[in-house]
Order: sequence, then structure tokens, then C-alpha cells
Amino acid sequence: MSDLLWQKPGVKVDARIQRFLAGEDVILDREFFPFDIAASLAHAEGLLRIGILAADEFAGIKIELANLAEDFGNGDFVLDERFEDGHSAIEARLIERLGDAGRRIHTGRSRNDQILVATRLWLKDRLARLHALCIESAEVALARADAEASVPLPGYTHLQRAVVSSLGMWWAAWAEGFIDDAQRARDTLAWVDANPLGSAAGYGVNLPLDRDHVTRALGFDRLQVSAAYAQLSRGKFEMAAIEALCSALLDLRRLAWDLSLFTSAEFGFVALPAQYTTGSSIMPNKRNPDVVELMRASYASAAAARTEIEQLLSLPSGYHRDLQFGKGAIFHAFGRGLGALELLPDLLRNLEWKADAMRAALDPSMYATDLAVDLARQGLPFREAYQQAADPARWAEGDPEASLQARVSPGAAADLRLDALAARLRAVRHVARSGDA
Amino acid sequence: MSDLLWQKPGVKVDARIQRFLAGEDVILDREFFPFDIAASLAHAEGLLRIGILAADEFAGIKIELANLAEDFGNGDFVLDERFEDGHSAIEARLIERLGDAGRRIHTGRSRNDQILVATRLWLKDRLARLHALCIESAEVALARADAEASVPLPGYTHLQRAVVSSLGMWWAAWAEGFIDDAQRARDTLAWVDANPLGSAAGYGVNLPLDRDHVTRALGFDRLQVSAAYAQLSRGKFEMAAIEALCSALLDLRRLAWDLSLFTSAEFGFVALPAQYTTGSSIMPNKRNPDVVELMRASYASAAAARTEIEQLLSLPSGYHRDLQFGKGAIFHAFGRGLGALELLPDLLRNLEWKADAMRAALDPSMYATDLAVDLARQGLPFREAYQQAADPARWAEGDPEASLQARVSPGAAADLRLDALAARLRAVRHVARSGDA
Amino acid sequence: MSDLLWQKPGVKVDARIQRFLAGEDVILDREFFPFDIAASLAHAEGLLRIGILAADEFAGIKIELANLAEDFGNGDFVLDERFEDGHSAIEARLIERLGDAGRRIHTGRSRNDQILVATRLWLKDRLARLHALCIESAEVALARADAEASVPLPGYTHLQRAVVSSLGMWWAAWAEGFIDDAQRARDTLAWVDANPLGSAAGYGVNLPLDRDHVTRALGFDRLQVSAAYAQLSRGKFEMAAIEALCSALLDLRRLAWDLSLFTSAEFGFVALPAQYTTGSSIMPNKRNPDVVELMRASYASAAAARTEIEQLLSLPSGYHRDLQFGKGAIFHAFGRGLGALELLPDLLRNLEWKADAMRAALDPSMYATDLAVDLARQGLPFREAYQQAADPARWAEGDPEASLQARVSPGAAADLRLDALAARLRAVRHVARSGDA
Amino acid sequence: MSDLLWQKPGVKVDARIQRFLAGEDVILDREFFPFDIAASLAHAEGLLRIGILAADEFAGIKIELANLAEDFGNGDFVLDERFEDGHSAIEARLIERLGDAGRRIHTGRSRNDQILVATRLWLKDRLARLHALCIESAEVALARADAEASVPLPGYTHLQRAVVSSLGMWWAAWAEGFIDDAQRARDTLAWVDANPLGSAAGYGVNLPLDRDHVTRALGFDRLQVSAAYAQLSRGKFEMAAIEALCSALLDLRRLAWDLSLFTSAEFGFVALPAQYTTGSSIMPNKRNPDVVELMRASYASAAAARTEIEQLLSLPSGYHRDLQFGKGAIFHAFGRGLGALELLPDLLRNLEWKADAMRAALDPSMYATDLAVDLARQGLPFREAYQQAADPARWAEGDPEASLQARVSPGAAADLRLDALAARLRAVRHVARSGDA
Repeated sequence: MSDLLWQKPGVKVDARIQRFLAGEDVILDREFFPFDIAASLAHAEGLLRIGILAADEFAGIKIELANLAEDFGNGDFVLDERFEDGHSAIEARLIERLGDAGRRIHTGRSRNDQILVATRLWLKDRLARLHALCIESAEVALARADAEASVPLPGYTHLQRAVVSSLGMWWAAWAEGFIDDAQRARDTLAWVDANPLGSAAGYGVNLPLDRDHVTRALGFDRLQVSAAYAQLSRGKFEMAAIEALCSALLDLRRLAWDLSLFTSAEFGFVALPAQYTTGSSIMPNKRNPDVVELMRASYASAAAARTEIEQLLSLPSGYHRDLQFGKGAIFHAFGRGLGALELLPDLLRNLEWKADAMRAALDPSMYATDLAVDLARQGLPFREAYQQAADPARWAEGDPEASLQARVSPGAAADLRLDALAARLRAVRHVARSGDA
Repeated sequence: MSDLLWQKPGVKVDARIQRFLAGEDVILDREFFPFDIAASLAHAEGLLRIGILAADEFAGIKIELANLAEDFGNGDFVLDERFEDGHSAIEARLIERLGDAGRRIHTGRSRNDQILVATRLWLKDRLARLHALCIESAEVALARADAEASVPLPGYTHLQRAVVSSLGMWWAAWAEGFIDDAQRARDTLAWVDANPLGSAAGYGVNLPLDRDHVTRALGFDRLQVSAAYAQLSRGKFEMAAIEALCSALLDLRRLAWDLSLFTSAEFGFVALPAQYTTGSSIMPNKRNPDVVELMRASYASAAAARTEIEQLLSLPSGYHRDLQFGKGAIFHAFGRGLGALELLPDLLRNLEWKADAMRAALDPSMYATDLAVDLARQGLPFREAYQQAADPARWAEGDPEASLQARVSPGAAADLRLDALAARLRAVRHVARSGDA
Repeated sequence: MSDLLWQKPGVKVDARIQRFLAGEDVILDREFFPFDIAASLAHAEGLLRIGILAADEFAGIKIELANLAEDFGNGDFVLDERFEDGHSAIEARLIERLGDAGRRIHTGRSRNDQILVATRLWLKDRLARLHALCIESAEVALARADAEASVPLPGYTHLQRAVVSSLGMWWAAWAEGFIDDAQRARDTLAWVDANPLGSAAGYGVNLPLDRDHVTRALGFDRLQVSAAYAQLSRGKFEMAAIEALCSALLDLRRLAWDLSLFTSAEFGFVALPAQYTTGSSIMPNKRNPDVVELMRASYASAAAARTEIEQLLSLPSGYHRDLQFGKGAIFHAFGRGLGALELLPDLLRNLEWKADAMRAALDPSMYATDLAVDLARQGLPFREAYQQAADPARWAEGDPEASLQARVSPGAAADLRLDALAARLRAVRHVARSGDA
Repeated sequence: MSDLLWQKPGVKVDARIQRFLAGEDVILDREFFPFDIAASLAHAEGLLRIGILAADEFAGIKIELANLAEDFGNGDFVLDERFEDGHSAIEARLIERLGDAGRRIHTGRSRNDQILVATRLWLKDRLARLHALCIESAEVALARADAEASVPLPGYTHLQRAVVSSLGMWWAAWAEGFIDDAQRARDTLAWVDANPLGSAAGYGVNLPLDRDHVTRALGFDRLQVSAAYAQLSRGKFEMAAIEALCSALLDLRRLAWDLSLFTSAEFGFVALPAQYTTGSSIMPNKRNPDVVELMRASYASAAAARTEIEQLLSLPSGYHRDLQFGKGAIFHAFGRGLGALELLPDLLRNLEWKADAMRAALDPSMYATDLAVDLARQGLPFREAYQQAADPARWAEGDPEASLQARVSPGAAADLRLDALAARLRAVRHVARSGDA
């Protein structure tokens, strides 16, 4: 490893301990590196504005940061164990190339500043992606709700056949779910859209840092004002982002459950295109819906990441090294979670329904509720109507289309209100630059 | 127990199984009962509007629901094991008092409707309380940040003395934290502010229920459109509410940690009024900060509630009985969490700082960072300035007030920007009636 | 509330704060009360042996503790908000009845001692119950595995039909699962079987307490030696107990999942006796397997309890009030968990299989693996055999009984080795009084 | 990627979906690879014994597996994205080198078999390491308890000064804690020491596999009998192993908390050797106890891993692809957890106490409990003694050594019973080859 920034003369370093301290930190930092470089440029610009950097020094730094970003992007620069972390690597490179100008880059900032601002930019990027995927999934669901509105599907409660439902109802449910998830992703993005850079080690610094300029330069919606709170929000903001992700993954988990059942031979309501399935090493007959199962499983990884951060956050104020473990956690959560959601819109587009099997699974008992309500509409008190309709002798093969057409309560098969959902989707699609008020 | 609504003739009931099924359900329903009654009235009004209830029937129901609410409030009606649950109890009472009008109340609704809408109203109530407590805590913190802005306090990282900080910085951090928490409570309140009533068992009903009217009558901001999504959102909305609560409790946990340390003899920075402490049954000398410790612990209860719900939500769509266990979970989370937050504003108001002890804990090393930055401002590259300032020979007893006055970076001691925080607090205090867009 | 043991003269008490501190503590203590009384007797006996109590004083205490236990059992003594907690209630009662002898009972012990020992005794009781229920469930499963060994059942992976399985294989799986769970319950019981009483506030006391005698009197297997570790183990032992419970509930969750599927109309493999089902308030046709669903859900409550304790345990050594919240957690976990397991043996006994439906769900593809292996046994390299058997043209209606009889690998249908499982069950049934070695 | 074992002719593969399915699976499999090779050898030996492999075929396989293990060890064989997973890689290599003999290796086994047995062997290896580290930590603690038995240390409850304690008491607590943890690691190792190989896809196979021989050859203590339970135990056994790890990490978390406080300037009880500390990039004065903080944080990673697996395990019986995500989870838990525990024994050996600071933190109130008990021993009822000793006028500077010498209750400073702890440590050190009975 290169020299440690903080190394004191004469202090021996224990290799085993250094390995424990470093962990896989510098490797993880690859994910943050472009954001760290971007934030370093904004910081340098701030230093220029308050006279710490001369114009030519800043110009050199700007060029070298751009070079570093390019080298990193094309693999000419590899961020690896030669460095304690990505933050130190940037400074080391600038010193190597620029000498004293590089030695000035860290004026008024700490590595905590760097990790905070890189995390924030990264979270914004991922939340925007989450938002877009929820919107796209909702759009597909809405379109199919409209196209297949009147196709009968058995409706279940407790996995027991209940009443006649429709593909319109099934798709509309997921549409509204992913609209809610998109709204939450958007709210969360606005909530974390605050610039922590300039908090130094959590207590500010004896320099008039131009934090307002840096905030604008990095595209943040607001300044995270308190230097001490910038530290306190570490982990807290990450958790909020993971929770927004979990909201969508929770819906995905339940959607995947439906598909897991519906693709079983016993239900047989859905066929998956072959590319969504895999085989077995020993059973020649198998086509398994692994994609659906891993989609279902992705919630677990996001929940694990939230646990990891949450368990760290029983601490007094101020920075503690414990917090470092939150970094890998968000990569794990969003890596798995967005990976699953990326495949969702196409999967939804490609689902093939087997209308005959769906119709065959409707049985006479599933019209009993219709009957009870009909009797009530005709004047019988509902509780009596219910008793009459509970008699199997009164159940008969029904007409599913008629049942669906009579289901006129708002949000049911005959009044899906897809226009209302579409209007809300449009409203939620827009990502405001508003902040809090 | 009274007769079960759904009991079939000739089916034996096993008392042990019924006990397991009932659990403490009807007792828990006490928490929901007033909301269930209010929603029953709105449902009845809806039935009146579509001709299921006659005017006099509705009038009778309105009176009896009011009576029931009053009787429940003053203890004349006790919700207990005589009933399967609170929902059945309302219907049973109306039938007892009104006969057929009572037998009509359940037309077009399910108990799932009742639990969904009662939960939603309850969550809105609790989130509003959460919001108000975060606002109040932030206000106290802001006021004290202003009043005690320049009192020196040791600043720590890794629990090691780092630089001179101030009470202004400490209080401002919590102010901004609770402003964020208030915003999140408000966002979450808006997110869950959707009326699920009228979804029946998740598939709607063959009646033109006036869900729009019911939505307005119950004060919801929007209709939760899809009947199937109303079921799918069960647990999902509860988790979002708990997570908003957890955001505030996370800050409370860290605040309580500070106070736990600061009230130790070793730190000795804070004195708690005697009523916040308790004694020991064996050690006559003890005054323990139990209130602070239970505040810290309250996060655990909210996290447990979230775990309980989350573990249930690996299910296909449609209602499943598993979901019932989410009810006790939200009571546990908000009972413990709001219980702790209720005491927070007064605790913050009553904290007594021991300025002498705080000053005595400042040592010469804590000015080294100031020195390094000063050298950098004078032209030395920061990395060299750092090396010079690392020499203990250059450390000397400093002037904490001067250090604080020089800390001019925005958000630091000399530029706390309390006005910006106050402006954001005002913006966040307002609870909009906006919905999604 | 009665006077607080530790109240100092002149200190005002704030009612709201006291309510927060007390919570539902004294109500929860009802669960511990008999154990607290039993441990108080053992402690008194210890005090007698070292001369702190005179013989007549001890005799009085013994009588009054017995009276208290009786009064509590029959409801003549109600543990309620008059007392700060159950521990204080015992002392108050003894003082009320016996005067100075009562005032001596707390010599050399703390309330922490009381809660620790009561918790330990309670956990031992519940773990013994857990062990017994796992044993009983395994016995039922083993018996049915034997009785129904050769009944064909479709075998699934990924919820897709895979190969022919049997009821023998299905039951044997649960048998071995619950044997493992019983072993873990037993190991955990041995692990927590250590007496903490006599640790005072975690630092011992200047009295030669006869902890060895107390250990024997209370039936503990060993002394928990270190007074400081007695405190440190708070929560740790509770978590281990919950985790042992979770092991069984995890199996129950998966078993309930099978039953939830198998009782659906689509699978139709299992009929549940009517008393295990409930109806709907709106759908007259429903018979829902609520018992199975709540069994499945019970894992969530135990997991929540573990979360609650785990979140508390990020603390330095020594007692902290945070730990109090672990008490309700174990009641919640074992209340829900054992409640579900209590019903399991009978449910297993009462399951009715629908052999025709099971047989009808076998399809020709499910013999393809048999074919591939047969070809391999005849000399074809398996990877080629697999390719041949993957050709649907080679699949044909098979004979499930023949398939099962050929499944001779140990642990498969034709060699279930139920005798080996029975032998292990016998070995695990015995609860040793051994401790660790 | 190489050809997929199960690929059907004419089915297109979607690269994006394949990437999602593969994830980082093959990279993770590196951790299992040596165990997978070892189990493959045992499986081949079993096939030899039942005539599926000829002697020369087996001989070839044995040599090539040894070559592969060697190549993998020295880097000549790299397990990477060319393969779907490590399991397929072994088969591919054998086919490449041996032709038909290689095509026979998978006879009677599935990749599930391979992952199950490799996981089991890996867990046994890691649990043995966990056990050894707990033993070693307990030994260091015991030795230092003996060496520093009578050094006074302030004893705290609620972080408030309580009574005089000693280094003997402090060390003995951790010794007993890690002995318990070692016992749990040992119990868990015995619990998971069951051979799953030979279960095929969970339903066995139409071959008389010699599972008993394979069990012995791989060093398992017992056969995991039921083929279906082998699948059902996936995740369950992993969770038990993580929970055993968590037990030790919970103690480590609390120990690290003590050290975090004790190394603060305010407490000042402990000095850490310089190699256990790091510096700051901005504050030249800092020496931070990062090692201690990351030790504390390691619990979070293990808890996260448990969450990840637990969230997956709400499934019917039979294999599901969801379970794949449990693999990375155990690597994360044991990687972080054992990484921290590896450093613990040396850290404990190297701790330097600052006896003067510890003594200076003793204050007169800390003898009040001694006084109360003394008065009780002299005949005053304890509750009265407590009242008298609560009067600060009676508190005086005490003699800590005398206080400790009088603390004669077993497990307290004057009767630490280190011999009993040492005897238990010896008993727990031995890892039996016994299983359960």
C-alpha cells in the first residue's frame, strides 16, 4: 500500500491489522470513484473562489481530475490495494502529477466529506433509476390492464377460490402499486438531495468555504446545513434509500409469488418465455422459472443491507469507523434490487396468459357473493342474503363475463378507473427540483 | 364468544383452536374501534346514497354508532372476548338495537375493508402526531442553538477528542435532524392518505358504491383506486409508517447516546433533573438516567414491529390470515416510539449543561486542525501544513472562543445558519392536502 | 403506585415520566411472578444458611411466599400498577406481613438478580415445552411416514413437477426436521441452565452468599460463575432461546406453506377438518385454512422478538435500563410460537390426504430422471443418458409405485430408514442433566 | 460462458437474463471449490463401490480431481465466468480430461447435492475456527483475570459509577462469555455435522448409493437421512451457524464498547498499542481506535447475513432458486466475523491498563452499597440499612483493596472461582465426535 496520509514517524504498522482495517474498502470505492472525482472538482472550484487555489493550480487540477476519470473509465487507472481508499488515491494522483497544487486539494475537507458527498450523489443516481423502473413497470401494467381488462381470472383469498376476478383487476393492482413505489422513490430522492460537502470532520473549518456554490455545482437541491448533522445523517439517508427500494421490491416479491404459482402445472395460468427459465443438471424434464424466483429473492438482499446499517447506528454523535460497513451494504441492496427491477418491464410485457386454464379454474361457489349482494340489492338484509347464498344448493355454473360486468364498484372489474391511475402516474413521473416545501 | 358471522350449521368448533385464532385480537381492536365506527358511518352514508339503506335506517344507524362510540369511550361498552373482533362487534350491536337495518350495514363491505380503513385512519393520526413531535423537538433545539451558540463543547470523532465544538453546533445538528424527520413523517402521511374502503374482499362488489363520497367524508386525500391493490398494500403502508417513525427514533437513539455519555461522571457535561432519573434497590448511591436509556431503547421496539410485518409479506396477492399479525406490531411500534418522543421536547428544554466541565475537557491537541488550516491559508500546501501541525511540540493551550469564532465555514460554529434551518422548519411544519403531484 | 424502594426524600416525581418508565412492566411481570417467588425462597434459604435470617424469620418468609404464590394463583393477589414491578411487590408483601424479616429479604441481592433468575427459570420451562412439542411432532410424522410410506405424491422443485415422490418421503422430512429442532431445544436448554442469582448488581456483594446451595435448590445444572457475566448474558441467553424456537418455527413455516398449497383447489392434495378453517364475513362460500396461515405467520413474531433484543444489545458492559424491553419480547415470541406448535401434533394427526388427486398430478415427464439414471446404470455415461431422456418423445405414462420401489438410495422412498430416525428421536428425547462436558 | 448442462436445442439465451441469473455465483463458488472437489471424490468412490464407475475410471477421476485442486490452489485454474458455476466446472474439467469417465461423475447426484455438501463442509470448517478463537480468547481473559485479579476498576451500571470492581471481575466476565460461545460453536458444529450428499434433487435416485461410505469418507458424524429434509435444511443450518457466530460477536460488540469508552480521554483506563489505531486525513492530532470500532461493527454484517437467509425461507418444501442467495450471505458473515475474532486474542494480550486513572475514578459514593450490606450483616434490616447508607454524609473516601477483599460472594472479586472457569474451559475445548446421543 502507498504511504498512509496520517502515518506518524516511527509507528510500526501490523500487516494483519492493516488488512483487517482495509477490508475490501478500496475495491468497493470503485463504485464511488467517478462521484468522488466530480465532487473533488467542485471542492477545488470552491477553493479557487476563496483564494486557496490559484487559477493555474485549479486549471491543472481540473485537467488531471478529468484525466483520472478517463483513465479509470477505460481501465488505464486501476483502483486497488496500492491505495488505502479511493479518497486517498485521488489526492495521491494529483500530488504525483501536480505537486503542491495536489497537496492543497484536501484543504478544508476530510475523507468523511468525500465519502458523504460521493454516497449522496450515488444514492441520487440509484433512486432516479429506481423511480424510472417503477414508472416503466407501472406503464406496462396499465397498458395490459387496459388491453386485457375483461379476461376472467380466478380471484383468491387465503389461496382459496373466492370470486371471479379479471386480468384488468390483476394488472391494475400492480400498476397502482408501482405508482406508489415511484412516488416514494421520488420523495426519497428529494429528501436525500442535500449537499454534505464542506462539513470537514463534522465540525466545519476555519475557512469561508463556498458551500452554496459547491451545492449548485454538484446539482444538489439544497445545502445540508449543519456540519455535525452531515455526520449524523450517515446511514440514516442510506436506510431511507434502501427502504424506498424495499417498497418496490416488496411488490415485486408478491408479484413473483403470483407468477411462481401461476406457472406451476397445478395453476397453469401463465407461460414464461423460455429465456426466463433454466434446467436441471440431473432432471432432463425441467424448465424452472429461476428468474421469477430470484426476483422474489432480491428483497432479502435489500433487507439484509438495511439490517447491516441499522445495527451500526447505535452510536453517539460524531464519526465512528463502524459506519464504514454501510458502504458495501448499499451496493449489495441496489445491485441486487435494481438488477431484478431492470428485468421486470420486459417480463411483464412477455407474460403469456392461458385464458382457458384460467376459465377452467372458476367454479360455481365463486358466484355466491354476487348472489348474496344481488339479494341484498333486492331488499333482503345482507346478513340474511348471506345465509341464503351460503347454501351450496343455490350455487350454479355462472357466466364470468356477466359477473365482471356487474362488478361496478369503483376499482373493480367494471370500473377500473385506469384513467385516474394514468393521471396519477403522469403526476408522479415528474421529478421536481423543489426540496421540502 | 357470540355467534360467528360465518358459522355453518353443524360444524363443531374446537375451543383450543378458536383461542389460537382469536389470540388477543379483539383486545387489540380497542385501539381501532373509534376509527372503525367512524368508517362504518361513512359506509352507511354511502349505502344510503345508493339506495341500500332507507333514510330512517341510516338515521338509526347514525344514532346507534354515536351511542356505541360514546359507550365505548366512557366504558359502558367493553370490547372483549364476547366478540370475534371489533368489526363483528359493531354489526352485532347494530343488529341488537336496530334489527334489519343492522343486518344491512355489511352490504358491499368485508371485514378486510374495515381493518384496512381503520388502520389507515389510525396511521394518519399517529403520523400527524409524529410530525408534530418532530417539529416541536426541532423548535426547542433551534431555540437552544441560538441561545447557547457560543458555549464551547469538546468535539469528538471515534469518541476521541478532535476539535473544539460548541453547543450551537450540537443543538443545530438535532434541529436539522428532526426537521428531516418531520418532512419524512409528512411525506409518509401524504403517501398513505388513500381510502381503501370499498374494496370488499379485494375484488370489489356488484354495487355502485359511492367510494368518492366516502373518501371525502373520511377526510382522505385520494381514493385508493384498485380493489386488489387495497389488499396488496396491507403491511406495505404500515411498514412505511414505521420506517418514518424509525427515522426519528434513530436520531433519538443517537441523541440519547450522547446524553448517556454526557451524564456519566467521566464526561460530566450534562445534569438531568431528578425526575428523569431513578434509583437502585440495592445501591443507595445511584441516580440513573433511565428515561434516556428507554428513549434509546425505543428504536428496538419499532424495528421489531417492522421485522414482524416484513416477515409476513412473502405471499401471493390476495388476503391471507398471516397479515393479521401486523396489527399488534404497529401498536407496539407507535406505542413505544411516540411514548418516548412525547417526553423529548421537555427533556431538551430541561437539560442543564455544565460549562466548566465541558471547557475542562478541551486539550491543546484540539487546536491542531485549526493550526494546519491556518498554515494552509497562509500559503503552505495543506499536506505539509498537516505534517507540521502533527508535531505535539506545536500544540498549546488555546482559546476556545477564538477557535469557534474562526470556524466560518457554513454550518460551523461561526456561521450556523439558524435562519435557514428556521425557514425550512416553517416550510416543513405545514401539512399539505396535496396528495401525489 | 406504592412507594418506590429507592425514593430519596424531597425528590418530586413526574407522573408522565413515571408512566413512561413503568410501561406495562408490572403487568408483564405476572408471567415471571411464580418464578420470582420461587427464587426468593431459595435466596432466603441462602440467607438463613449464612446467618442473615434467623430460623423463625425464614420460616415466616417461607410461609408468606407460599401464601403469596397461592393468592396469586387463585386471583386473591393481583399484580398491578400499585407496584413498580413484581420484584418490589414481593418485598412489599413480606414487609407488610412480617415486618423486619421482610426488610431483610433483599440483603445481598438486587432486582437485577431477581429478573435474571426469573427469566432463566422461565426460559428453561419454555424450552422444555418446545423440546416436548418437537418430539411429539416428530413422532406423529414418523408414524405417518411408516403408515403411508408408499402413497405416491408429486415431487416438486421450483414448484414445478420434478419426479414422483411419496408420502413416506414427505413425512420423513418433517420427522427429521423436528428431531433436529428438538436437539437444538435440548442443547439450548442445557446452555442456559446456569444460575445467575447472587450476582447482586453485577459486582457481587460483601457477603459469603451460598450460591452453590441456591443453584441446587432451584434445580440449575451449574452456577453462572462471574457476577459481571450474569449481567452480560442478559439478552444473549434470551436470543439463544428465541433462536432455538425459530428453528422449529422455520420448519413449521415451510410445512404450513406446503399445506397452504395442498389445500388449494388447484393442488387439492389435502383436506383439513372443518375446525381448522374459518369463513368470511362477505363471501358465503369460503372455508379458509386460517390455522395453517397463522402457524406460518408465527415465525414473524419470534423473529420480531429477536430483533427487539438484538437492537438493544449494542452497549458497554454493566446493566442498562434498555435491557428491560427484552422481557416483553420473549413473552411475545414464545406466546405466539408455542401457541402455534401446541396445535401442530393434532393437525398432523388429522390431515386427510386425497390420494386420487395426488396421483392425477403425476405426469409422464416425472419419470425422465428415472430413465436417465436407468440408462446410466446400463452403461451409458450419465451426461449422454440425460440428453436422451430429455427428449419428450421418450416420456410415457409411468407406474408411480414402480418408480418409488426403485428409488433405493438411502433416505429415498424405497429405503426411508425410519428406524434410524426413530433411534435418533429416542436419543434426542432424553434431556440430560449434564451441562457441557 | 461454456455450454449449459441443461441447455435444450433451439432455445435462445438472453445475455442480460443470463447475467442476472449468474450474478457473482461462480466467483463466490471459489470459496467452496476445494470442498466441492473433495465431495466429488467421495461421490466418485461411492459410484465405484456400486459399479457405476470402473476402477480405472475412478483412478482417472481421482488423479484429475487432485490436479484440479492443485491447479486451483496455485492459480493455474481460475474459476470464472466461463462456467455457470463451480459445480459445472468440475464436471467440465473431468469431461475435458477423461471423456466418458467425466460424463459419468454426475450419475445419481444433482448440483443441489454439490452445493449442500460443500456448504456443510465449509460450515464445519468455519465453526471449528470459531470454536478455536473463542477458546483462545477465553484463555487470554482467564490468564489476565488471574494476573490482575486485585487491580481496582470502577464498576458501572447505567454508565453511572456504582461500586468498586476489579480487573479480575472484568476479565472473568469475558472468559465465561467466550467459554459459553465456544460451547455453542461446538454444539452447533455437532448439529450440522450431517452428510446431505446423496439426496439428488431432494427425492433420492434409483441407485443404491453408498451414502454410509460417503459419510465416513468425508468425515461426517452422521448421515442426514431424509433426501427431502436435506433440501429443507438448506438455509436452516446456515442460520444456526451464523447464530453461533453472532453469539461470540455479541460479546465482542460489548467488549469493544467497553474499550471504546475506556480509550476515550474522559475514561482513560486503557491504552491501545499504536498499531491498533489510525489517523485522520484532516486532523493531525488524532489516533483513533478503528480496530476496536470495526470489531464492534462486525456483528452488523453477521446479522445482515442472517436476515438475508431468513427472508428467503418462507417457501414450500423442495428446492427453489431463491435459496442461492444464502451462499454469499454466509461468506459475508464469517468473513467479517472471523476476521474480527482473529485479531481478538492478541488485542486482549496487548491491552495496557492505566491503573492510576482507574483508581482516580473511584469516588466515595461507590462504597455506599458495601456500607449498607455491612449494616445488614450487623443486624439491621437491609431496607433500613439502605436508607442510612443513602445519606451522603455517611460516604467517605474508601479503600478499594479492602472493598474488593470483602467482596466474598462467589463470582465476585474475592472469590472469582477461576478454577471453575478453567475446568469448564477444558471441558468445552474438546470437540467430540459424538453427535447427539
